[in-house]
Amino acid sequence: MSMTLGQRLRTTLFGESHGPAVGALLEGVPAGIPIDIEFLMEELQRRRPGSGIASLRKETDECEILSGVYQGCSTGGPILLLIRNQDARASDYSFLPDKPRPGHADLPAMVNSSGAADPRGGGANSARLTAGLVAAASLVKPLLDEHGIIIKAHVSSIGSISTDMEPQDIPLSESSQRVRCCDPEVAEEMLAEVIRIRRSGDSIGSQVSLVINGLPLGFGAPWFEGLEPVLAHALMSTPGARAIEFGSGIAASKALGSEHNSPWYLGNQGPTTDGDGALGGMATGAPLRITLTLKPPSSITKVQKTLNISSGVQEELQVGGRHDPVLAPRAVPVVEAICRLVISDMILSRGEEDE
Amino acid sequence: MSMTLGQRLRTTLFGESHGPAVGALLEGVPAGIPIDIEFLMEELQRRRPGSGIASLRKETDECEILSGVYQGCSTGGPILLLIRNQDARASDYSFLPDKPRPGHADLPAMVNSSGAADPRGGGANSARLTAGLVAAASLVKPLLDEHGIIIKAHVSSIGSISTDMEPQDIPLSESSQRVRCCDPEVAEEMLAEVIRIRRSGDSIGSQVSLVINGLPLGFGAPWFEGLEPVLAHALMSTPGARAIEFGSGIAASKALGSEHNSPWYLGNQGPTTDGDGALGGMATGAPLRITLTLKPPSSITKVQKTLNISSGVQEELQVGGRHDPVLAPRAVPVVEAICRLVISDMILSRGEEDE
Amino acid sequence: MSMTLGQRLRTTLFGESHGPAVGALLEGVPAGIPIDIEFLMEELQRRRPGSGIASLRKETDECEILSGVYQGCSTGGPILLLIRNQDARASDYSFLPDKPRPGHADLPAMVNSSGAADPRGGGANSARLTAGLVAAASLVKPLLDEHGIIIKAHVSSIGSISTDMEPQDIPLSESSQRVRCCDPEVAEEMLAEVIRIRRSGDSIGSQVSLVINGLPLGFGAPWFEGLEPVLAHALMSTPGARAIEFGSGIAASKALGSEHNSPWYLGNQGPTTDGDGALGGMATGAPLRITLTLKPPSSITKVQKTLNISSGVQEELQVGGRHDPVLAPRAVPVVEAICRLVISDMILSRGEEDE
Amino acid sequence: MSMTLGQRLRTTLFGESHGPAVGALLEGVPAGIPIDIEFLMEELQRRRPGSGIASLRKETDECEILSGVYQGCSTGGPILLLIRNQDARASDYSFLPDKPRPGHADLPAMVNSSGAADPRGGGANSARLTAGLVAAASLVKPLLDEHGIIIKAHVSSIGSISTDMEPQDIPLSESSQRVRCCDPEVAEEMLAEVIRIRRSGDSIGSQVSLVINGLPLGFGAPWFEGLEPVLAHALMSTPGARAIEFGSGIAASKALGSEHNSPWYLGNQGPTTDGDGALGGMATGAPLRITLTLKPPSSITKVQKTLNISSGVQEELQVGGRHDPVLAPRAVPVVEAICRLVISDMILSRGEEDE
Repeated sequence: MSMTLGQRLRTTLFGESHGPAVGALLEGVPAGIPIDIEFLMEELQRRRPGSGIASLRKETDECEILSGVYQGCSTGGPILLLIRNQDARASDYSFLPDKPRPGHADLPAMVNSSGAADPRGGGANSARLTAGLVAAASLVKPLLDEHGIIIKAHVSSIGSISTDMEPQDIPLSESSQRVRCCDPEVAEEMLAEVIRIRRSGDSIGSQVSLVINGLPLGFGAPWFEGLEPVLAHALMSTPGARAIEFGSGIAASKALGSEHNSPWYLGNQGPTTDGDGALGGMATGAPLRITLTLKPPSSITKVQKTLNISSGVQEELQVGGRHDPVLAPRAVPVVEAICRLVISDMILSRGEEDE
Repeated sequence: MSMTLGQRLRTTLFGESHGPAVGALLEGVPAGIPIDIEFLMEELQRRRPGSGIASLRKETDECEILSGVYQGCSTGGPILLLIRNQDARASDYSFLPDKPRPGHADLPAMVNSSGAADPRGGGANSARLTAGLVAAASLVKPLLDEHGIIIKAHVSSIGSISTDMEPQDIPLSESSQRVRCCDPEVAEEMLAEVIRIRRSGDSIGSQVSLVINGLPLGFGAPWFEGLEPVLAHALMSTPGARAIEFGSGIAASKALGSEHNSPWYLGNQGPTTDGDGALGGMATGAPLRITLTLKPPSSITKVQKTLNISSGVQEELQVGGRHDPVLAPRAVPVVEAICRLVISDMILSRGEEDE
Repeated sequence: MSMTLGQRLRTTLFGESHGPAVGALLEGVPAGIPIDIEFLMEELQRRRPGSGIASLRKETDECEILSGVYQGCSTGGPILLLIRNQDARASDYSFLPDKPRPGHADLPAMVNSSGAADPRGGGANSARLTAGLVAAASLVKPLLDEHGIIIKAHVSSIGSISTDMEPQDIPLSESSQRVRCCDPEVAEEMLAEVIRIRRSGDSIGSQVSLVINGLPLGFGAPWFEGLEPVLAHALMSTPGARAIEFGSGIAASKALGSEHNSPWYLGNQGPTTDGDGALGGMATGAPLRITLTLKPPSSITKVQKTLNISSGVQEELQVGGRHDPVLAPRAVPVVEAICRLVISDMILSRGEEDE
Repeated sequence: MSMTLGQRLRTTLFGESHGPAVGALLEGVPAGIPIDIEFLMEELQRRRPGSGIASLRKETDECEILSGVYQGCSTGGPILLLIRNQDARASDYSFLPDKPRPGHADLPAMVNSSGAADPRGGGANSARLTAGLVAAASLVKPLLDEHGIIIKAHVSSIGSISTDMEPQDIPLSESSQRVRCCDPEVAEEMLAEVIRIRRSGDSIGSQVSLVINGLPLGFGAPWFEGLEPVLAHALMSTPGARAIEFGSGIAASKALGSEHNSPWYLGNQGPTTDGDGALGGMATGAPLRITLTLKPPSSITKVQKTLNISSGVQEELQVGGRHDPVLAPRAVPVVEAICRLVISDMILSRGEEDE
């Protein structure tokens, strides 16, 4: 079992939700990249629970950098990012492993590991491990900046409330900040909906939209190392992801070729198109648009039924713990982090001969 | 640039649409697997153009096995599968590289390779290379059979004509056979629609639905080697893929947790659920349902506009050649092949200690 | 830059000699392996400086296991092994980076990293990082035990003092223990020689011999994943390694085929031979014998000349710090650890179909 | 089982000695490299049997390039190199698999593959597969030329006849050409010795020395991706390799540090040393010297004993076929090819950020 993302830039997650620590070992960062600890902490803060709509688990997420950095810059060696677990109440999971939660990976993980996995809080499958992704991705931002590549995500739908607005910097309105949606009016509706759902002890599905700007024409590769396959792989690893769409997405299934094709023309940066941001795995110069669908969180406070593995009969289960009623808001920084790691990997994978 | 799919079972594609050959080098097949050449040829035949709705390019797709097989069984060494190109009319592509086709990777591939790529017929980006995938996948079917894993796909929508029927063996009705849809009545409508679209010189989007049955509870891995991420990666490499959905897919974005969660219960094969076939990358014992959205083929006979790269001005372009008006029917065996390779890889990746 | 050993069992080293920590992230350990912390600490203790002939750097080498272990067993997830640095006197290295030490990688590492490497004590190139290898390897010993594979190494030569005795458990004689040589009489000579060399401010070359018993006939793979290539790769990563020999080693260059060939015969465990323990990358059932030549340590207290990189002129350099006068004794547990990791990786790489 | 060498530049061998073909699939060659077919054929010719001292197997070794090349240059895609087998007399191997040859991998390969391997002529373990290595390596020579890196090998010893001369272009003297030794006087002795050995129905061990010039200071990486480990891995895959030495090799085991250390000084190309060409995995700017020891070929015409696997008793075996009495002369182009592939891989692995 490998928990590594990337080829040349490799991020390996480790840790368990209620074990001593989580984090990431990041390999392949070029030597001499300035390390911005402030930015790392901000990104972790963005991912952190604590807003009104998110889990109440309190964590300061102090991140230690234990190798690969010297005098404020990357050395080129592996960078160990360690985040100790602090506010973990294992007692919330005393029903495990006997009564696996519906919609969670508790039972598959237990069988997969022949019973050896740490079940508490989802163990290694916990979304808590995305902290390592976010911390790692913060370190490679200079690579993207240098190439003029900008990645932006926001929440484009919660339940049936949605916006067509493209991701941009989140405005300062309270509801936009709390649900991480750029459209302040829609954000207000979303927030009300989330509060309503939370009160009902339920949860709701959602979507994150993201746009990658600045990918130069031809960036990427055909087939299995192409932009779409590699991004699909990485983004579908986001906890709760159920679907991913590129460009017009599933709407393409109903389109005519004559509508869907978009002619090449000469833009300011050279040839480009108004159509898909990637074709056959390689960038067209147009913005690359992606929508990720996230299921409703499986942890709800409503009473559910599940199988008692020991007894073989179904029993009632009420899940305690502190959980988010919707995934997209906290997924925004995670999705951006994943894209940052993937695109940086692709930048680094272009060797000297490709320049 | 790597054109390899898989970790332990590695399929590397090679070739160009109008070069001497295409094919695959397949590594990691265990020693002693019986090689069924009949089945290999049948699978290639299924992928081949030639039905009323598909490209008229005629190819016998003779596949030579040049290594790794001895006395009818795999030796454990790399298996070279070579398919010579025969009926390739390069003259159909005399407009390249100057006038890249809208919606195709012609221009990104040319820039990506600094002008060195073979542009004819899409070169290495051509869907012709899926012949190598189909041939390779046919060889590992015994692995899936042995584990009782069954992969079935069919065309679930073409334009706005769709069926909810699950993939099963395609019935013998002519339209079902030609559009590869299990629902004979819908297939008839689809066929009429495709013929209409083809006559109009246009093309249409479509969807393939697929179901994987028999994955044992716990099969898979968390995070980046999980079922959903790894299948998303591989399937989004299918030419023209624009979206992939698992389980309820984008509908999950509107669902409540209390609806979407599905309790565990004791089935005939042990604990299972009626919900998602995979949770957190690992199988639940339920069927794993996937829908892949394919865009309308970019090659249409209608006159289009494109940029003349040499002159820098837009010009008209009429694409000749022989092309499919819809992707899904011919994608069915390709999508099944990709899943077969991915699942076999995951079977082989479970080491002796995991048994 | 990757600091990872192995394919399926992957050990990634991290850290710097004088940074906050060293250690290893170990991926691929099957779930359910009992973790023996006592043995881990004993192995680290064996590698530790402190005997009369070794470096005086004092380190307790407390090793924290921060992930991948639950209730005393491996979970199947990545295992983070963290060893904090304590007794590191960076002031000993104030001559760096201006005056690189002869025979050390100071200057190549500085150029390789465009000046960003941590130069203190060799940074990431320090033999201190072998602590991570030793800790990681201790965890997979149960895999080898289960397969009856036994790895034993000892010091077979120091300078021109050598023994033909095969590696076995080191006898309790003080000199055998201190130089880690199984032959007590030769060990006494070796110890006297090392003490003499140390007093003269110099250092001396040495050899470690190792034998792997219990590899079943056919274990391994041809070509680049064969026993000899993979072991050569891993063992030549030992700091200071200059040569590796398998079987009769360089003596084979003078042998006749009729002498060197050894007939197959029926042994107790099935067919075997008295010749090489591996042929064409695969085990023969005979013991696999390896000799690793280690150069004299480059850090000597004698005054040396080196280039002052800033001034461009040669200057005198006297290296302080605490260093070993001979590498082999402390390399014994490292070499065993490396073989343990390599052979475990090969065990795990044999999939279920190979059984 | 993988038969792939390299990370970014990947050469995968395929084929069997007496199957339809051998060859290599070469991935990672940058787009736009001119393909020199003449040079490819010359290199294959150098590796070919046929001189007075080598095997009499006649093969024209026509090599087809079936993908990845367009208009005389690499496209960036996988390059398939196919060499059909022609002059293979399988009847020479009718004693297999029952009577495995001493010193060959016949029996380990048979057990490793549970009896499925092609035993004829060593199957996939045959040195015939080095043709794929040689063909592949010829294609990347422009990469090395561009960086001013020169790799030269020659035969430095056969039995107890040896020379200290460094590898250089082989002089035109007949014996130098036939035994591939730069020292014409020693070559004459070697040739006489080889002829004597051959007449006696025996074989003899040998050594190849090689020097890599032009590696820039700092080229390489620490630990497992270092020059010495990676070269040791690749070169120990040469059929018959028993030992590899870097720099002073096993003589280092007897040296004092004060003798073995070599000071840094300012050379014409910048700082360098007269000592080892690599330290800690990275180049010093000095020539990198390597000696590879090859055992006597195991196929001899003298009558030998071996086990009859079916009957379980030892029997006499007389091996027919056409075999070399010494490995080093034909290994010279193979060893150069392996180094060319390894160094090219390392060049390509330095990303844009490293420049």
